Amino acid sequence: MAEIAVTLKQHDRTASLATIRDHQFVIDGPEAKGGHNAGPMGGELLLASVGGCFMSNLRAAIAAREDVRVENISLTVTATLSDDMNDFLLFTSM
Amino acid sequence: MAEIAVTLKQHDRTASLATIRDHQFVIDGPEAKGGHNAGPMGGELLLASVGGCFMSNLRAAIAAREDVRVENISLTVTATLSDDMNDFLLFTSM
Repeated sequence: MAEIAVTLKQHDRTASLATIRDHQFVIDGPEAKGGHNAGPMGGELLLASVGGCFMSNLRAAIAAREDVRVENISLTVTATLSDDMNDFLLFTSM
Repeated sequence: MAEIAVTLKQHDRTASLATIRDHQFVIDGPEAKGGHNAGPMGGELLLASVGGCFMSNLRAAIAAREDVRVENISLTVTATLSDDMNDFLLFTSM
């Protein structure tokens, strides 16, 4: 697992298809951003990546303790798109 | 589109389910990282988010020029996981 790679290809007029090992998903913008909402947009995937890493490490830390059992963990990662720079993200909470 | 949010919930013993507006996908680690490979891992989603934003902006720039037509765009984002810090990513190419 020393190197990781993601390939993106044009999928249709606005969407891209991401291939990650044996997984594929569509990346697109919502209609308000000029896309067709065929999938999450890049900025949303960034939040998902941060949340996914956090969840993974949290669960590993819990699993390492035999005396702790935690179920139904849920977390929300939010960010605000700056009015000044439309594609600038400010993480607001996790 | 001022605020964006992603919610993650425990999905099974190792995977998480990410919900982004009306989209959902599973985040998991490969078996070599203790997961069951039900989906990409967080670090891979980070690469996908960077590539997705790049692709989106590249295509918007192309679309803004009436005299240019580009098809079959493909790009690969790669990163190396550091040997010293197992979860540390070094972007190597796009």
